[in-house]
Amino acid sequence: MQFASRLDNVETSAIRELFKLLGKPGIISFAGGFPDSAMFDVEGLKEASQKALAEEPGGALQYGATEGYEPLRSQLSSFMKTKGVDVDPSGLIVTTGSQQALDLLGKTMISPGDKVIVEGPTFLATIQCFRLYGAQLISAPIDANGVKTDELEKLIAEHKPKFVYLIPTFGNPSGAMLSLERRKKVLELAVKYQTLIVEDDPYGDLYFGEAPPPSILALSKDVPGSRELLAHCGSLSKVLSPGLRIGWMIAPAELLAKATMCKQFSDAHTSTFSQATAAQYLKSGRMPATLAHVREVYGQRAQAMGAALKRELGDAVSFTQPQGGLFFWARLTGANGKLADANELAKRAIEKLVAFVPGAPFFAEKPDVATLRLSFATADVAKIEEGVKRLGQAL
Amino acid sequence: MQFASRLDNVETSAIRELFKLLGKPGIISFAGGFPDSAMFDVEGLKEASQKALAEEPGGALQYGATEGYEPLRSQLSSFMKTKGVDVDPSGLIVTTGSQQALDLLGKTMISPGDKVIVEGPTFLATIQCFRLYGAQLISAPIDANGVKTDELEKLIAEHKPKFVYLIPTFGNPSGAMLSLERRKKVLELAVKYQTLIVEDDPYGDLYFGEAPPPSILALSKDVPGSRELLAHCGSLSKVLSPGLRIGWMIAPAELLAKATMCKQFSDAHTSTFSQATAAQYLKSGRMPATLAHVREVYGQRAQAMGAALKRELGDAVSFTQPQGGLFFWARLTGANGKLADANELAKRAIEKLVAFVPGAPFFAEKPDVATLRLSFATADVAKIEEGVKRLGQAL
Repeated sequence: MQFASRLDNVETSAIRELFKLLGKPGIISFAGGFPDSAMFDVEGLKEASQKALAEEPGGALQYGATEGYEPLRSQLSSFMKTKGVDVDPSGLIVTTGSQQALDLLGKTMISPGDKVIVEGPTFLATIQCFRLYGAQLISAPIDANGVKTDELEKLIAEHKPKFVYLIPTFGNPSGAMLSLERRKKVLELAVKYQTLIVEDDPYGDLYFGEAPPPSILALSKDVPGSRELLAHCGSLSKVLSPGLRIGWMIAPAELLAKATMCKQFSDAHTSTFSQATAAQYLKSGRMPATLAHVREVYGQRAQAMGAALKRELGDAVSFTQPQGGLFFWARLTGANGKLADANELAKRAIEKLVAFVPGAPFFAEKPDVATLRLSFATADVAKIEEGVKRLGQAL
Repeated sequence: MQFASRLDNVETSAIRELFKLLGKPGIISFAGGFPDSAMFDVEGLKEASQKALAEEPGGALQYGATEGYEPLRSQLSSFMKTKGVDVDPSGLIVTTGSQQALDLLGKTMISPGDKVIVEGPTFLATIQCFRLYGAQLISAPIDANGVKTDELEKLIAEHKPKFVYLIPTFGNPSGAMLSLERRKKVLELAVKYQTLIVEDDPYGDLYFGEAPPPSILALSKDVPGSRELLAHCGSLSKVLSPGLRIGWMIAPAELLAKATMCKQFSDAHTSTFSQATAAQYLKSGRMPATLAHVREVYGQRAQAMGAALKRELGDAVSFTQPQGGLFFWARLTGANGKLADANELAKRAIEKLVAFVPGAPFFAEKPDVATLRLSFATADVAKIEEGVKRLGQAL
């Protein structure tokens, strides 16, 4: 069978292979990219789904508008308002998880050979998704304060990309938080170079202490002309439930219209059953308590992992304590002759019954093999401490 | 904003514009392509969703395998068995409605410029979906017994298509049923020319009298080598609920693996909440009664529409009484100087407060402007009679 040429640009990820080993009995996994099922507000979602079927069975079970189920668009508009973003329900479309927003951006924007700037490292499924549409990805370096905007400007000026893709708040895998100053700089760059900026924000609500700076979208009201150069992707997956597959995209009207047309031929619309359930949930008023709960639990776990890493691995790793999200991004320093290759460490770790993801695949260019990603989301504090201890032994 | 070049191949359909007029008060619509909300087994789906959340909240709300939720794959395997198809759960993937199966086939198989043969007429969203991937569509003529296999063979021999796409059973818009003889011929052509055949089958369960011939997939067991050249798309949208967005694809292992990889970057996976609900519903044993009910109601409506068309429009239209599905496909004959342009009739019909869809947009090549599609799914018998009367007046 002869497949489409676009498949030549991607490969099934090394990480998928790793995940097959996670079934090993007794393993402690820091490898996942998902939230803890124990955090799901099952009772609240049960009530919401019942209400959806009782009050609006036609809407919840019938075909719906490609743009999204009206009551959900309305609720999401209100939800965004609590985060400082003024957007009309018609200014957003519902997507089948924010993964689909990425797919629609690829389909709508990327012609084969087009350049797209991403962070190095960035979300693995973004790399693959854009490459399937023929994108040539350029990697912009980051530090603990997110993408280095000076370097980003040079890359924009040199490559004139179709767009710049950023996960500014507690990014996957970096956990980094783009500083307020750099957020403003990104908006200035958008206007100066008339470049579309895509802000992917699935983790912004998962902060542990102080709230992070406003999203780039929220800040755009202070930078004339920038709002028309911004696409923003949101998601309920990390804070409520990934299984609902509810994401959304806010973008300039013209882009939103083209993305909607593409979505029509991708999946017609997102499950109205999921959409009506999510709308009822947001309407129920349970979201603030749910958010407070996940912030507290993940915050404790992040604290525990940071302390354990220092205790068990010492100067063999360097990292910045994440202020939110689901991930530690660490780097093997090679101090005192210790291992500095995360692929090799991953193999040894599996033998010691602890798993994590090596960082190299998250780079679209110039992989750093000393990096690794550790999720603190799904193991409790005791497991985190035991797991990091094993990691220290593996090292 | 400069969009991807692939968007140049499609346009928002004329039909979408028409649909904006359907809100007019008092209108009777035969324009929709959707089932009747009143047919939905709301009680059964309510129970199924409650069970899903009670018994498997982790599975129903968490990220899931891209291939599909295991209990649903298992139920779909059993469901296919009742239709004469022997397929292991691992031999199918769950898709976000069967529209996504089409999208994945496009993404996986079509390089820009590749030829694909479709029926003339065929499903509008298939045309647009494949064109977005750069396909050049070739139209194979049909009659009341489905695609004319002699003509199809000539086209395959001439164009060497990437694949042939058929809706053999009560197709949208044609309502035609491919005869048993022609189904066998299609399988022979697949083997003779080593051409992939895509069988889209969302309507096969909606028959009114005798069951239709087995699906092309079911028949493949008698034609050596043909199974490896078949992809089959199924859906719960027309018989249970479109809002769940549950479709599936059965295909050779290599194609299924590539489609799964593409799906990973399209939407990660189909809503596990929808999938777990559908699995519980199929497990509940309510499906046979639901099928019997929709067959009966739609059968009565089809009967009523056929009789009304004969009575009210006489020899001004020709059509074959459909044996299943949701649609009449009719042709204006122009007899006695009557109108033979369905676009013009559609405009006059809206003035008389009745709507249908002109047939021309359903042709990938050489549109027949005398054709029209009438859905009998959503209006009851009295409305059908009144609506067809108005249609007669418009004509």
